[in-house]
Amino acid sequence: MSEIFIGIDLGGTNVKIGCFDSQLNLICKTATATEADIGPQAVVDKIGQTTEQLLADNSLSSQAIAAVAIGAPGPAKLAEGIIIASPNMPSFRNVPLRKMLSDRFGRPAVLENDANAACWGEYVLGAGKGVHDMVFFTLGTGIGGGIVSNGKLVHGAADNAAELGHIIIYPDGRKCGCGQKGCVEAYASADSTAKRATEAVEAAAQSSLKKILDQNGKITCKDVFEHSAASDELAKQITDQTAKALALVCVNMLHTTEPKRIVFAGGMIAAGDILLNRIKDFFNEQIWSLKKESVEIAFATLGEDAGIIGAAALAKQAKDNGKFKLGR
Amino acid sequence: MSEIFIGIDLGGTNVKIGCFDSQLNLICKTATATEADIGPQAVVDKIGQTTEQLLADNSLSSQAIAAVAIGAPGPAKLAEGIIIASPNMPSFRNVPLRKMLSDRFGRPAVLENDANAACWGEYVLGAGKGVHDMVFFTLGTGIGGGIVSNGKLVHGAADNAAELGHIIIYPDGRKCGCGQKGCVEAYASADSTAKRATEAVEAAAQSSLKKILDQNGKITCKDVFEHSAASDELAKQITDQTAKALALVCVNMLHTTEPKRIVFAGGMIAAGDILLNRIKDFFNEQIWSLKKESVEIAFATLGEDAGIIGAAALAKQAKDNGKFKLGR
Repeated sequence: MSEIFIGIDLGGTNVKIGCFDSQLNLICKTATATEADIGPQAVVDKIGQTTEQLLADNSLSSQAIAAVAIGAPGPAKLAEGIIIASPNMPSFRNVPLRKMLSDRFGRPAVLENDANAACWGEYVLGAGKGVHDMVFFTLGTGIGGGIVSNGKLVHGAADNAAELGHIIIYPDGRKCGCGQKGCVEAYASADSTAKRATEAVEAAAQSSLKKILDQNGKITCKDVFEHSAASDELAKQITDQTAKALALVCVNMLHTTEPKRIVFAGGMIAAGDILLNRIKDFFNEQIWSLKKESVEIAFATLGEDAGIIGAAALAKQAKDNGKFKLGR
Repeated sequence: MSEIFIGIDLGGTNVKIGCFDSQLNLICKTATATEADIGPQAVVDKIGQTTEQLLADNSLSSQAIAAVAIGAPGPAKLAEGIIIASPNMPSFRNVPLRKMLSDRFGRPAVLENDANAACWGEYVLGAGKGVHDMVFFTLGTGIGGGIVSNGKLVHGAADNAAELGHIIIYPDGRKCGCGQKGCVEAYASADSTAKRATEAVEAAAQSSLKKILDQNGKITCKDVFEHSAASDELAKQITDQTAKALALVCVNMLHTTEPKRIVFAGGMIAAGDILLNRIKDFFNEQIWSLKKESVEIAFATLGEDAGIIGAAALAKQAKDNGKFKLGR
């Protein structure tokens, strides 16, 4: 019987579960509501049952499971396998999630930060393939990040490295939810992009977005990019501000861990070249002239599966390295 | 006969050479003019002769040398042991410095970037002792950097990681020598600090620094800090701008590789607490409120010896790990 690796992507709303073979091919996957308010133990039980059902539906035995890994949001003590807190799952406080999963499955388990897991997925099988140094941004409600340096995830001194959304790009600038001012998240997340557009339209700037605001009561990031593509001047300005903010963090990351590739993920990348090309334009405008840089700026390729793929890859890697005692 | 490790710090003006035992205790050291214009081979010969003289003067045999390492300025291919170019040593272009040193000494050699070597020195024996994740800044004419992540120097995709002086903190801000605008180097290096003070005094700002400019024809960074300590308002403002710029990169590095300790080195740290405390004040003002951070901001402790100590430590580490084939 060949080995199976389970990759889990735990979100505040849904939990995704993927079943992979030892070459990290996806065999089958499913998703279910997290229902975090039922409490951590009940969530773990639900994950266990859902996984067993998934395997049974695909004529697989849970005996074949070699290892399990989960990507989870919020600050954690990864080496100890503990979730410290999670903004969207208030019942998850100091939860020994790795041990709970390991107990439930009777198999070794790995806990990783959710953005790191998605970063690792893209690194192993997606847009980061073939490089050793990569930086990863997820553009959604907020901006998450991950760093791969010399083939390894950067965890930092207290497992909270790569909070890249909170790099300050405009000191004393827009207020961020984290309490800082001028974070890239406050300019270039999907929510911030929509918010800047809404503020501009409300301040009576001329734009085809005005009709959207009047009709729908709100402007989304998608609206901004669509109207930008249709050559609305305001929408183009807002898009450019987002692209410039992202280009600035690309420059700063190049001078920090010097990635070979910078990968953007998240719903916002559906905008395609209208966004990607502007990020590249601003990067070329902002970067030094001291020497030619060959960093590649690209969009993610795994979509919503990045998290389960990355988790499964971490489970396999930990098993291969015999690293389960270290918890990574 | 116990083993000796040679640590070399190659600068545009001087080359420093240190001789260390296998516990990395400094046995003896010396310095000599680099005279880079005599060409790379002649410089390497001079380093060889100076080292042999140093050993002879201390009744040591060059036969005891186990390995040699050199920290050198400018972009390099570290894995290949090649200096690509060096702004202050025009004759050093595509120089296989590691091989040349290894041939001259008849011993394995290591090439490292000079700021990385100094960073490694502080990490191993100085202000970084006891942590696994450290960020290092040298504040001089420019601002250099080094990153230790999980106990290892971060080299990046093309051996040019940690160019931390070129992190952009004020987009479209002051022009930097590198061609970018708004780099931290353009605000917070010793030269930039002096330049901002000079500009302000020339623009007729009231300040006790005016007399210095009139008398000496220039204002130095040291003048700025001295007049700041003596409560000159303009000097305090200039000092604060420097401290704030450095605090901003501390915040950004915390959210990137999450160091446990951030270490500042270079002539500027002679300013002492008048600078360090302001950096900490601004850090506390700028950092998020999401969670309490325990990063420590400190000044370097090894002074000018950091480079030779770091180089010797890298030589020893490479020998211990049998890593000479990899060239690091």
